[in-house]
Amino acid sequence: MAFTYLTNVPLEQARKDYLRTLAEQGFAARTERIRVQDAYGRVTAKAVYAHINAPHYACSAMDGVALCARDSFGATDTTPVTLSDAQFTVVDTGDPIPEGCDAVIMVEELVKNDDGSVTIHTPAAPWQHIRQIGEDVCAGEMILPSFMEVTPAAIGAMIAGGVLELEVLAKPVVGIIPTGDEIVPPCTDPKPGDIMEFNSSIFSAMLASWGAEAKTYPIVPDKYEQIRDMLEKAAAECDLVILNAGSSAGRDDYSVSAVREVGEVLYHGVAIKPGKPAILGYRGAVPILGVPGYPVSGIIVIDELLRPLIDRWYGREPDGGTRTRAKLTRPVVSGLKYQEYVRVRMGYVGNTLMASPLPRGSGVVSSFMKADGMLEVPQGTEGYTAGEEVRVRLLRDKQRLKNTLVVIGSHDPLLDELADLIHREDRRLFLSSAHVGSMGGIMAVRRGEAHAAGTHLLDTATGEYNRAYIRKYFPHGGVYLIRCVGRQQGLMLQKGNPLGITSFADIARDGVRYVNRQKGSGTRVLMDYLCDKYNVDRDKIYGYEREELTHNSVAVQIAGDSADAGMGIYSTAKLYELDFLPICVEEYDLLIPEKVWNSGMVRQLVRTLKSEEFKRRIEAMGGYTLDNPGEIIDVF
Amino acid sequence: MAFTYLTNVPLEQARKDYLRTLAEQGFAARTERIRVQDAYGRVTAKAVYAHINAPHYACSAMDGVALCARDSFGATDTTPVTLSDAQFTVVDTGDPIPEGCDAVIMVEELVKNDDGSVTIHTPAAPWQHIRQIGEDVCAGEMILPSFMEVTPAAIGAMIAGGVLELEVLAKPVVGIIPTGDEIVPPCTDPKPGDIMEFNSSIFSAMLASWGAEAKTYPIVPDKYEQIRDMLEKAAAECDLVILNAGSSAGRDDYSVSAVREVGEVLYHGVAIKPGKPAILGYRGAVPILGVPGYPVSGIIVIDELLRPLIDRWYGREPDGGTRTRAKLTRPVVSGLKYQEYVRVRMGYVGNTLMASPLPRGSGVVSSFMKADGMLEVPQGTEGYTAGEEVRVRLLRDKQRLKNTLVVIGSHDPLLDELADLIHREDRRLFLSSAHVGSMGGIMAVRRGEAHAAGTHLLDTATGEYNRAYIRKYFPHGGVYLIRCVGRQQGLMLQKGNPLGITSFADIARDGVRYVNRQKGSGTRVLMDYLCDKYNVDRDKIYGYEREELTHNSVAVQIAGDSADAGMGIYSTAKLYELDFLPICVEEYDLLIPEKVWNSGMVRQLVRTLKSEEFKRRIEAMGGYTLDNPGEIIDVF
Repeated sequence: MAFTYLTNVPLEQARKDYLRTLAEQGFAARTERIRVQDAYGRVTAKAVYAHINAPHYACSAMDGVALCARDSFGATDTTPVTLSDAQFTVVDTGDPIPEGCDAVIMVEELVKNDDGSVTIHTPAAPWQHIRQIGEDVCAGEMILPSFMEVTPAAIGAMIAGGVLELEVLAKPVVGIIPTGDEIVPPCTDPKPGDIMEFNSSIFSAMLASWGAEAKTYPIVPDKYEQIRDMLEKAAAECDLVILNAGSSAGRDDYSVSAVREVGEVLYHGVAIKPGKPAILGYRGAVPILGVPGYPVSGIIVIDELLRPLIDRWYGREPDGGTRTRAKLTRPVVSGLKYQEYVRVRMGYVGNTLMASPLPRGSGVVSSFMKADGMLEVPQGTEGYTAGEEVRVRLLRDKQRLKNTLVVIGSHDPLLDELADLIHREDRRLFLSSAHVGSMGGIMAVRRGEAHAAGTHLLDTATGEYNRAYIRKYFPHGGVYLIRCVGRQQGLMLQKGNPLGITSFADIARDGVRYVNRQKGSGTRVLMDYLCDKYNVDRDKIYGYEREELTHNSVAVQIAGDSADAGMGIYSTAKLYELDFLPICVEEYDLLIPEKVWNSGMVRQLVRTLKSEEFKRRIEAMGGYTLDNPGEIIDVF
Repeated sequence: MAFTYLTNVPLEQARKDYLRTLAEQGFAARTERIRVQDAYGRVTAKAVYAHINAPHYACSAMDGVALCARDSFGATDTTPVTLSDAQFTVVDTGDPIPEGCDAVIMVEELVKNDDGSVTIHTPAAPWQHIRQIGEDVCAGEMILPSFMEVTPAAIGAMIAGGVLELEVLAKPVVGIIPTGDEIVPPCTDPKPGDIMEFNSSIFSAMLASWGAEAKTYPIVPDKYEQIRDMLEKAAAECDLVILNAGSSAGRDDYSVSAVREVGEVLYHGVAIKPGKPAILGYRGAVPILGVPGYPVSGIIVIDELLRPLIDRWYGREPDGGTRTRAKLTRPVVSGLKYQEYVRVRMGYVGNTLMASPLPRGSGVVSSFMKADGMLEVPQGTEGYTAGEEVRVRLLRDKQRLKNTLVVIGSHDPLLDELADLIHREDRRLFLSSAHVGSMGGIMAVRRGEAHAAGTHLLDTATGEYNRAYIRKYFPHGGVYLIRCVGRQQGLMLQKGNPLGITSFADIARDGVRYVNRQKGSGTRVLMDYLCDKYNVDRDKIYGYEREELTHNSVAVQIAGDSADAGMGIYSTAKLYELDFLPICVEEYDLLIPEKVWNSGMVRQLVRTLKSEEFKRRIEAMGGYTLDNPGEIIDVF
């Protein structure tokens, strides 16, 4: 059952060999004729020449009269010249110059007489105010060279030059074949075991951004013949083919054999992580790329191995993106065998650009959505230490990062509402939050990595929240503690409380599956405090070691019947329709460094905390109390 | 007949007042529900929350067996644990974790026995290799805040979260009404007086680039009621309306009255040039913008006054573009009353970025296509002197400018073929040529403003081409003269030579309309030399003062029966099917500064001159002789 991939070829080499092999096979752009009106953003396949002159006739450039310039010679203020109506023709801008005329006098420069004649006081220079034939475009002239992107003005110039159609590079059609017995089309109520097919939607959007067109085929079950037949059909109908999933080594993975039957396989296995099981195949000039099923792996394989083919199709330089230096907030450990891709959240706190590694699970597509940058750990490198300066490829523009409030610390769903409210108020501003628990937030503020940290740490000695910790970790001050909300903490329980849990101590009962929060989170501090207070033996709690990072993720384990109880806040229990055993009301505050206190972003944050709309939203969530949010708490 | 616009309001104020007035009228984005699959690049109208968890069930993260972790406790290399087939379930990646199981062991870490049992040598930690419910997305969590652009990964995260539709800002629909009796749809054989309607195609492409959708109405003749009725229809059907042409002061200009009848006019006349006659109107919350008919004026008005409305619709910051400093090659004179827009060609020669003003005629849409940048001369400024450093808004990216060969000098259609060949050979490279005559080219090279100059200057004393001029203007060397082509010069005549012109001297005959080239062009030098040689009195030549800038534009005057004769090259006469009276073969060479000689761009230029494909194209054009093009000519 164990399986080794055929190859562990370095990415650079795989890409180069793939491009070369495909070039030898004749992989090249198709062209097509389209209407000029539809050509915006397309790329000319060959030079475009004008068919006619523009203007195609000599015409007046002004409103006025056309005349023969000689008839006006000698006119001055003292010796005006009067032209009979046979000597001139009234013309508007754009009117043709009548036969025998070679100049135009502007309406403002002549006097109309009652007998229909006009009097002028300045002679007309021959050809004045006349747009000559071809002034804009001459017939036969090249309007656009080959392989140029068509701009709005070029569309105008082509039509002016009588060009109504042109030959452009066709958009490459990329067939996407989703495979897998467990794969189902997107829906709102999947059954256990169903995996929703959304990779093709992600890939289609990526392809669109590169100027390619996706053609998604129906989902093919894990049947060898059906996969092979669909591959043949797609390779015949498309310019490139993506075979999704089945590129790994499970029992139903027929992909590589199917690619081999319909064409050739150059490599199976590339030294990247995620993305290793990629299949680099082709049939004739049609590339067939086998892409792993996990969305993050798929995105990386498509970006690193399919995008260069689209670039080659259009003959354009690969867009390497913008790389920048950033300070790593946490260590990144990587294997020597692969080039590893680590998604990072980024933010400027002061002048330093920080990069925080996001979860690396390749099934976690939301991590890609949250990523501001990509850290590529080269093959042969073991990783980086915290605080190290690394080069990161930016996935968002720098200005946005400069306008992003970095909130690191305890999780509360109200942070998402704050993000929404702040961005609605000022669309230049963004809020990005990372959930590392209250202690993690305090440390992030200490290291200068966050604009704000959510914290709710109980000093078990005094029963007071946050103040003692702040005094301990910031003995010299330099931070503000800002009142945010009071929130109801307690035990979240399955709906209807089937196990009859009525006290905190019940979580240690036999048959109760508990789900815990991670160390350093305020909720974990509270949990451990309660264990001591009620003399509950941690070893007796089934699931004490099972850690989740947010209130929500604890709640969903309970709602999904994978656990029976977990500590959390009332608003989350309400969201998931769980039963709730209230334990205490805690203070959830925001810690903000003094040095960013007067920044526009933090000013907006405080304004939003004080707003009516924030109050309205918080009250709708339930389980919160509001007592002057945004107010500075006296700590020191 | 004279007319004054109502207002000459500064652009900034006009824009601000227009935006404020429209906001008061309720101008705001519509929203619409669309499928998530179609949402790439769209902007969320409100926050999007997950409906379901992803994964929605606890599933295996590996291929292997699911078990109850406790059953594996104590397993080591020396004391392996064997599980009966009742104690585990074979699972593939993505399979649901069966009831009672809480861990997965990878297939690589177990030994299958013949009796169906498996043996393991390491205990499983509870929850290992299990993707927890909601690991990616938790139901109820915010996936995207309001007013965020939808990325490919966000599409994946939404589908994973059970979101199949979302509410986005609708693309604003912009109605475009072309008006004018003389306006006809695009065609290849317009009659004299017909003006092809291509503005709507230009505007549509501009709108598409801003995320708006154009809806172009049929051309409306200059009939007041018809214009008014179409305005009413468009204002009812669209989010914004562009009324094209008729915003000026000619006899058929009903626009402003029509806008006033269906709605309100805020301003008629803005202090910009071109674009002054713009009408800033509205009906209720629907902006109605009256746009001048000349394409360049129209583009500027749309860019300066309609684009901000689209930005406001989407709530995004106006994109001010990239501004950069550049050295002006020629003076720009501007009126004090207006902010003037001057299109410029730009290029790097060495490290200096140069900006050369393009023709300012507002009918010349091709100048917009050729423009690399826009110089905005503020209201109240008289312009700039040559050599002055100015700020220019870039219309292309800087890297492209750095990769552009700047060729300034004598016109020959072969320069367009060179541009095409060089870009086909290396798509990073571009060639931009400006036609200022041979002397203009020599001066541009002397001032360090060009990588190459086409030149064919006859030394009338020796009959030799170019060398004497180069020695005179570059007494210390520093340039290479590169052989390009020999070309046949002569008189281009109307087809069939109806006037029976058989010698150069005939151009001074009565009834012959001549069209000349501009001073400083090699062809003009030749013309004046021939006048002296054959004793032709310049005063007797009708049209001696009528100057055109290229061989083509001389030819089209003759082909269009606006002239009878003009000096030019054989290939141009052939292109326009004119008769041709040969006079001499001249040397058309390229002058290249030594300091750019070894640059990649100039290397490619020389390679292309020596190529077979260049030879093939030149021979197809006719009238050229090739004698080692690309070779260095011994000058000094």
